[in-house]
Amino acid sequence: MDKNMQVLLAQRPKGAVTEANFQLVERDVPTPGPGEVLVRNHWLSLDPYMRGRMTTAKSYSTPVEVGDVMVGGTVGEVIDSKHPRFRTGDFVVGSLGWQLFGTATGDTLTRVDPDLVPLSAYLGVVGMPGATAWIGLLEHCQPRAGETVVVSAATGAVGSVVGQLARMQGCRAVGIAGGKAKCEYAVKELGYDACIDYKAGKLYEELKQACPAGIDCYYENVGGPTMDTVFRLLNPFARVALCGLISDYNVEDPYGVKMIRSLLVNRVKLQGFIVTDRMDLYHRAISRLGALVSQGRLKYRESVADGLQNAPTAFIGLLAGRNFGKQVVKLV
Amino acid sequence: MDKNMQVLLAQRPKGAVTEANFQLVERDVPTPGPGEVLVRNHWLSLDPYMRGRMTTAKSYSTPVEVGDVMVGGTVGEVIDSKHPRFRTGDFVVGSLGWQLFGTATGDTLTRVDPDLVPLSAYLGVVGMPGATAWIGLLEHCQPRAGETVVVSAATGAVGSVVGQLARMQGCRAVGIAGGKAKCEYAVKELGYDACIDYKAGKLYEELKQACPAGIDCYYENVGGPTMDTVFRLLNPFARVALCGLISDYNVEDPYGVKMIRSLLVNRVKLQGFIVTDRMDLYHRAISRLGALVSQGRLKYRESVADGLQNAPTAFIGLLAGRNFGKQVVKLV
Repeated sequence: MDKNMQVLLAQRPKGAVTEANFQLVERDVPTPGPGEVLVRNHWLSLDPYMRGRMTTAKSYSTPVEVGDVMVGGTVGEVIDSKHPRFRTGDFVVGSLGWQLFGTATGDTLTRVDPDLVPLSAYLGVVGMPGATAWIGLLEHCQPRAGETVVVSAATGAVGSVVGQLARMQGCRAVGIAGGKAKCEYAVKELGYDACIDYKAGKLYEELKQACPAGIDCYYENVGGPTMDTVFRLLNPFARVALCGLISDYNVEDPYGVKMIRSLLVNRVKLQGFIVTDRMDLYHRAISRLGALVSQGRLKYRESVADGLQNAPTAFIGLLAGRNFGKQVVKLV
Repeated sequence: MDKNMQVLLAQRPKGAVTEANFQLVERDVPTPGPGEVLVRNHWLSLDPYMRGRMTTAKSYSTPVEVGDVMVGGTVGEVIDSKHPRFRTGDFVVGSLGWQLFGTATGDTLTRVDPDLVPLSAYLGVVGMPGATAWIGLLEHCQPRAGETVVVSAATGAVGSVVGQLARMQGCRAVGIAGGKAKCEYAVKELGYDACIDYKAGKLYEELKQACPAGIDCYYENVGGPTMDTVFRLLNPFARVALCGLISDYNVEDPYGVKMIRSLLVNRVKLQGFIVTDRMDLYHRAISRLGALVSQGRLKYRESVADGLQNAPTAFIGLLAGRNFGKQVVKLV
């Protein structure tokens, strides 16, 4: 049988993540115990939240220990099952981490249909990022037709779904992304009404022009100076869904946000959230998103890294915004 | 008849407010037109929101024009009435501004009972600040028995009511105030479980000790470094009622808040609000607060400036935290 390959957390990053924080090792393929399933992973998901797991700073959940396999969502094929609900040949989504093979108890796995959408989509638009977009926009921002929705990291795994859903809700969708190519894609492919390239250095002026009626909803993935700039343009009773702060993740000293006053005078509601707090909505969101993708109403794009050994480089690139669309690693 | 005295906005402040921003003038007492009421003001309220009206920066409402009478809540006695609902000798709360006499249309005035609570209380604990406390705490923080509520400007007009209401709700109430005397008053008179003197320079350490189970609700009147410190101790699913940012009002370059990450990882809801957005709750709040004061269950304290000519100095002191309790000006 094949050997298993794993990427371990070799050391905790100080500031920016580097290749030296990871170690690629070879291991035997594990054997499933009672109630467990052995999965050959086809795709690994890379997501910004993993940065938080690499440190001991307070975050949603416990950090990865040094020497342990990096955590991560995966989709793959059942090779061996000691669980009554799964059979060899089933395709399952789970969280088996940065490795080629893994075992998990059956109740942590979800069977998926490889004929409805491509397998990798279950890690993105029809997976955790898609559900994150759905819940943050529809539950926390509650956009109404005619309102203006601004989305940072507009072409990322989450942002690209937010922008398209905002358009479906009858809103003006304005993206913020890094670089001309991403902005063109946002408008031409994803249907954003406008997209501002923050790297062009005129974010405030261009955003103001793109939002002539101000901003009613802000779906925030980035933080830092982008947040401060968007806060300046919030309308009375605006809603901010705080989903991520990727610009802060790699820095020791986070940016100080000055425009808190805008939250006061405009009576803004800001809600920090993570997708797993609303598991009551998760499966409904996934089911609706799967239908929209299969009907061709929801587009997505992936950055594919080829092979587990390239996962660290791809993850470092993700934190720097070098991905274009959902970052996945092809393992098979 | 007496002459009217008024305090005008003489010039807009640049940075800190100074006496030179105001001008005291003598005018004739006005005559009420049809539907109007002439009121002799007994008490003038001084409140932090007035700082916003002195500038043209975006705020809740339109600024005071240079040369106009400063806005402000007042309570006084009806001298002459051309409105069917009011008679000479009635006591009324209104917004007649920094002057001894003023006219207003009857529908902007509310008759109050001078026998239920002292007249000046209608400008504080049984007025706009009390209703602000009520709505922010009970509607936006929604504290549950056993939770920890932190209140900044804990002995101020709003904060002192928040702390007492939090105790009535069965919460641990922890105040933040400037100086030992205010903190002693907070604990001994208002019933706070603890109060931290931020001027002692150990806000984080002392707040952490005073909140062994973390912070579930934060009623924010201050902003700046205080906000950043409290954010570090928020619990998962904490609520922040953003009522004021007095530390920012007098500065050109506001403090940058670094701990936005805590709002994300703890899935915090932050709600900016002003009391007049919830007029549906205002009268209920005032009625409950009046009953609590008359039953002796709700305490309050006032800083009294004597005479309209002392209003500018008192207002400057209020912005610097030199008041102790609700700042009012005695006019009669």
